[in-house]
Amino acid sequence: MSLQDKFSRLGTDNAPGQEVRQKAGALELRGEALPGTPVDFSHGDVDAFTPTPGAFEVFAEGVRRGGAQAYTEYRGAAAIREDLAAKLAGFTGAPVDPAEGMILTPGTQGALFLAVAATVSRGDKVAIVQPDYFANRKLVEFFEGEIVPVRLDYMATETEAGLDLGQLEDAFRQGARVLVFSNPNNPTGVVYSATEIGRIAALAEQYGATVIADQLYSRLRYQGCDYTHLRASGIGAENVITIMGPSKTESLSGYRLGAAFGAPKLIERMEKLQAIVSLRAAGYNQAVFATWFSEPEGWMDERIRLHQAIRDDLLAVLREAGIAARAPQAGSYLFPRLPDLAVAPGDFVRILRQQAGVIVTPGTEFSPHTAQSVRLNFSQDHAAAVQAVGRMAELVARYRA
Amino acid sequence: MSLQDKFSRLGTDNAPGQEVRQKAGALELRGEALPGTPVDFSHGDVDAFTPTPGAFEVFAEGVRRGGAQAYTEYRGAAAIREDLAAKLAGFTGAPVDPAEGMILTPGTQGALFLAVAATVSRGDKVAIVQPDYFANRKLVEFFEGEIVPVRLDYMATETEAGLDLGQLEDAFRQGARVLVFSNPNNPTGVVYSATEIGRIAALAEQYGATVIADQLYSRLRYQGCDYTHLRASGIGAENVITIMGPSKTESLSGYRLGAAFGAPKLIERMEKLQAIVSLRAAGYNQAVFATWFSEPEGWMDERIRLHQAIRDDLLAVLREAGIAARAPQAGSYLFPRLPDLAVAPGDFVRILRQQAGVIVTPGTEFSPHTAQSVRLNFSQDHAAAVQAVGRMAELVARYRA
Repeated sequence: MSLQDKFSRLGTDNAPGQEVRQKAGALELRGEALPGTPVDFSHGDVDAFTPTPGAFEVFAEGVRRGGAQAYTEYRGAAAIREDLAAKLAGFTGAPVDPAEGMILTPGTQGALFLAVAATVSRGDKVAIVQPDYFANRKLVEFFEGEIVPVRLDYMATETEAGLDLGQLEDAFRQGARVLVFSNPNNPTGVVYSATEIGRIAALAEQYGATVIADQLYSRLRYQGCDYTHLRASGIGAENVITIMGPSKTESLSGYRLGAAFGAPKLIERMEKLQAIVSLRAAGYNQAVFATWFSEPEGWMDERIRLHQAIRDDLLAVLREAGIAARAPQAGSYLFPRLPDLAVAPGDFVRILRQQAGVIVTPGTEFSPHTAQSVRLNFSQDHAAAVQAVGRMAELVARYRA
Repeated sequence: MSLQDKFSRLGTDNAPGQEVRQKAGALELRGEALPGTPVDFSHGDVDAFTPTPGAFEVFAEGVRRGGAQAYTEYRGAAAIREDLAAKLAGFTGAPVDPAEGMILTPGTQGALFLAVAATVSRGDKVAIVQPDYFANRKLVEFFEGEIVPVRLDYMATETEAGLDLGQLEDAFRQGARVLVFSNPNNPTGVVYSATEIGRIAALAEQYGATVIADQLYSRLRYQGCDYTHLRASGIGAENVITIMGPSKTESLSGYRLGAAFGAPKLIERMEKLQAIVSLRAAGYNQAVFATWFSEPEGWMDERIRLHQAIRDDLLAVLREAGIAARAPQAGSYLFPRLPDLAVAPGDFVRILRQQAGVIVTPGTEFSPHTAQSVRLNFSQDHAAAVQAVGRMAELVARYRA
């Protein structure tokens, strides 16, 4: 593949946060703009939900520590890995080896990049869930792997995520030896059931496949949500890499911190690559990991409660407007499917921004089959979010086919 | 190339800072250990030369700014790019376009990775200077390019860097369309003359080649050093990417900040890739760029003066011991060539660490032809560095063939 082709597939025009770089084009607008506080649903608002208390102070201590904190092994400071390994083992229910089985990265994006690079090369078949986080697909394409899509029928069920396990087995039968997926699913917020996770583990074992499990949002779980960690579900320790980080629920995204843990052979590759990609997660920033899984008593419960309240109010607005959406079980994404409109979905997203001050991420980023959906990160100011989704509903009505 | 092969070539065992992960092996030691303050010459000591005054305060302001600072475009915050573009245009003597011609990255390593990824694909011939920064070679290998080595005969001259310009033209004639090089050269600290830079620019123009110029150390220049910026030397703006960052001279490495500027077409590719590699340089950290090229009056001059004094004292110790070394014209690397020893060069590096508490980077990292050399980053406590090089000289005498 030529570099030109390779990079033309790596579009970022619709990527969250990049709206400012879009070229303006003529839109046929109906009616007047809707007033209200602009809301950027493309990412969470860290001013509405602020970083973990003490994060900055721990960072400041890291700076004071000086060289010892600035320069760490490429895989991250040993003491920090030791602390985190114990916490992550407790959280996920399976051992984590701080010396050989863990790497700290610049955000979970950094971990995902390294994990895909360590497992996928030209022509390799890779099972990718649709819809799922857009970078999964782009990473496989960048390394010239071949995507084997596996459908997530998230609207057909309320008790499972809706993964088509038959398609997953077909993908493995066809030769896919890597599966990349997020749980909770990004963009829908659905959580894989114990049955689904058990089956993924069994199939990975049967076919000797590696699974890259992006669990970025696995701490933000709503009432009644049962969460099953793949790495504690009978899959061989050499067949799974789990990725987490404090950028979302904990609002520490300004520090760019992530962690990958699992198969030592793959972690070793990831470290070798990190050495030429970014060297390491910023040394001072690594210090902030100390606050992770050590938040003040009750802080996480309250954060979950507040998000659940926003989720419920937004769902009520959507349902009132006749816009289909499954209630997310975890995370802060809503993925409503809009009704048929008189304008193209991409144009509607631009209209939303222009007429309502509402920024959402187009569904095409997550799957070729979800063009009618939009993703909203509802980690926002509660009142502003409710009003913004109200404005979206009003524009949906205005532009209905 | 299989992933196994690909990653087996990406060795990091001897990479700076990774010594702690080396497996211990039996060494035949001569005599007793030498007492003294341990010195890690594999990187600069940010406790000896501390970060730019005000860097932490500017970071703290960034955190207070909240979401606007945490989430920036993938290529970095627009306001920061505008500020930097003006400063870098002034420093390098050619215009920098903040909107289309610049990207902020997690360290210069991040910039180098993206630049090579944007220009090199499988089978592409790439001119690489020998010796030069080890990541240049590793990056080309990672993207399955073919290295065409160009010799830097740095010991043969005192007025030029010593690049074999005939070999460079041969490389272009053979089809290389990319040149990656550092100026000042890492590991030797030599600076390319105006004649050499002019010739590189002319050849790049003639053959339509892209040049990636890593100028990480271009601010730390010693008395009598004339520095020529490639990008202001008649090369087409579409044919050059320049990389700089405040990690070295400014001791801001704990923040991981770098910048690449030049050809908009390549910067665009680099941003697309950064979106799936690490998203962006950590948002809060980007704020620290405000201190760059805005250091307190006289601060940089003093920093240069102090480094020059260390350089001169270390060279005196080496020459006294009969160890060959060219005086670096810029940067904080010394690259002495050790005499023939009774032990293998790699073993001597381990012996140095074990018997003298002195960590250096083996010459094999920089070229297959410099196994007898070692690299020292002399941005260290002055007295400790002089004593440590004294211990190295003593061990060289002890292990002479």
